[in-house]
Amino acid sequence: MIRFISPAAFEAALSALPAPDADSRAAAAERQNDLTKPVGSLGRLEDIAVFMAGWQGRARPVLDRGRVAVFAGNHGVAARGVSAFPADVTVQMVANFQRGGAAINSLASAAELELVVVPLDLDRPTADFTQAAAMEEAECLAALNVGAAVVEDGLDLLLLGEMGIANSTAAAALACASFGGTARDWVGPGTGVQGDAFATKLATVDAGVSLHGDAATSAFETLRRLGGREIAAMAGAVVAARLAGIPVLLDGFICGSALAPLAAFHPTIVDHCLAGHCSAEPGHARLLVRLGLEPLLSLAMRLGEGSGAAVAANIVRAALAAHNGMATFAEAGVSTA
Amino acid sequence: MIRFISPAAFEAALSALPAPDADSRAAAAERQNDLTKPVGSLGRLEDIAVFMAGWQGRARPVLDRGRVAVFAGNHGVAARGVSAFPADVTVQMVANFQRGGAAINSLASAAELELVVVPLDLDRPTADFTQAAAMEEAECLAALNVGAAVVEDGLDLLLLGEMGIANSTAAAALACASFGGTARDWVGPGTGVQGDAFATKLATVDAGVSLHGDAATSAFETLRRLGGREIAAMAGAVVAARLAGIPVLLDGFICGSALAPLAAFHPTIVDHCLAGHCSAEPGHARLLVRLGLEPLLSLAMRLGEGSGAAVAANIVRAALAAHNGMATFAEAGVSTA
Repeated sequence: MIRFISPAAFEAALSALPAPDADSRAAAAERQNDLTKPVGSLGRLEDIAVFMAGWQGRARPVLDRGRVAVFAGNHGVAARGVSAFPADVTVQMVANFQRGGAAINSLASAAELELVVVPLDLDRPTADFTQAAAMEEAECLAALNVGAAVVEDGLDLLLLGEMGIANSTAAAALACASFGGTARDWVGPGTGVQGDAFATKLATVDAGVSLHGDAATSAFETLRRLGGREIAAMAGAVVAARLAGIPVLLDGFICGSALAPLAAFHPTIVDHCLAGHCSAEPGHARLLVRLGLEPLLSLAMRLGEGSGAAVAANIVRAALAAHNGMATFAEAGVSTA
Repeated sequence: MIRFISPAAFEAALSALPAPDADSRAAAAERQNDLTKPVGSLGRLEDIAVFMAGWQGRARPVLDRGRVAVFAGNHGVAARGVSAFPADVTVQMVANFQRGGAAINSLASAAELELVVVPLDLDRPTADFTQAAAMEEAECLAALNVGAAVVEDGLDLLLLGEMGIANSTAAAALACASFGGTARDWVGPGTGVQGDAFATKLATVDAGVSLHGDAATSAFETLRRLGGREIAAMAGAVVAARLAGIPVLLDGFICGSALAPLAAFHPTIVDHCLAGHCSAEPGHARLLVRLGLEPLLSLAMRLGEGSGAAVAANIVRAALAAHNGMATFAEAGVSTA
């Protein structure tokens, strides 16, 4: 199991990210060109098969074990009134996940994915980042390692999701500190704030970025000051998956925000990641552009929980089914162009 | 089983299209608003669940039996050199479907869909539509009924696909005759034509529309003059599915072109149809706009065979899984906003 023993170890991992296996990629690409279809006619399904081949290190990649990890955390800024829902909902929704009643339960099951739900100290919200750093060093490191711990040998794909009342506020702050602009560029309605609460959300993000921006001099420091435990856990999981050679399927805006500080300092961190979807949360499209990721789906979803990623896993499964199941022109006796 | 006894009977069916069940739609929409998620946060998944409820006539729609019907036909215009592949490939690919080696075999299987492959008189191509109507009345009517015959009671969703060398030429002619413009608005590379062959394809479409445009005064006449057997079969299947209360999931440009003459005269024909994807074939985006359909996927696919629809069936399945499997706020004891 991968464990980051210090903030410096986390940064060192980000500075030495492994590349995909070039031979497996090349073999997969060659196979795609031999299958009974016009070259390129399966579009992004072909790209996905080659991507998976490279990161799994085999010409015939599989999706036997896909795992959705949903991390939950509570946020000090929730007390400022930045969400349409009360903070109690985080713990209530974790119970709903555990009883099987949430969207991600049904979507993971439909896509034949394992589901792991990881609440992080829900009774102890992070600090209000307009007043102090959201987390102490040890807290942030612990959260990274909670994320890393879901990366198990034998997984073929890791999907990331989250739940945390007020975490779209933290996400906007992370995106803003990582990629610039102002709160207005990154803040959206989240679960549905409007009016005064929306103005409060904007002011909260601007205040946080203003307080911590100059000190956000590394991926770790940015995460620690403006993030949250569930967000740091997703960041830890992404890096650990890279070290383990496991491709990652991302969810929406909050999930993407976990990569923002990593990508700002180490842009190749996204190379083993697919963007599952583009959320209706307006900052997500902008965030995907800054991450250099093209979403697989665009279905106006904005729920989080890994829901968009879980739906997108079906696309990955389809891509691999075609890649592994189709006959070549020679096998089928079909004339080529 | 639904059977059109004459061209007039087909037109009569198009003039009296049934509507979805309003009560089932309302009940499904109400359920969506009670599930443990912010209202609207599953985006198009919510719309799909309500759509399926209306056409299946039950508040909890299902996808136990989804059927992909792939129709294959040969085209007189193939002899003009409008395709990147020889006409022999149609029959070779039908053999490939029957042996399980094509993309649609793998994609249908991955999505747990039945696959029915229906070749239509492959040894007898339609007439070259630059010289005469592609089909006699009886031929076109027979093709409509071959399509109608795949609509079986008990299907929860019908997916349509096709194979036919040169059929993107017929599709462009149908779209052009139905929705106006010139060949340049509707002709694309298909399986990959370029240069002189592309110029020939453009000229072929313009010649066909010029010869038959004035006589294309009904859905049937347009299909008969410029279509092909596999295209007419898809049209027959769409209308028969409507009469049977079975929702339809469309594939790409050729599939959409089967609806073009129907929708030009009877725009509500698309109401029980979902557009599975937007193809990389450039005319498809324009065709979807004219049909008033928003595609579920946009993955740069351009293969046909029902491949895009089969991938999109996973989205429908996910939508229904969430709709039927999630807990309500009351059941889960989660606070509402």
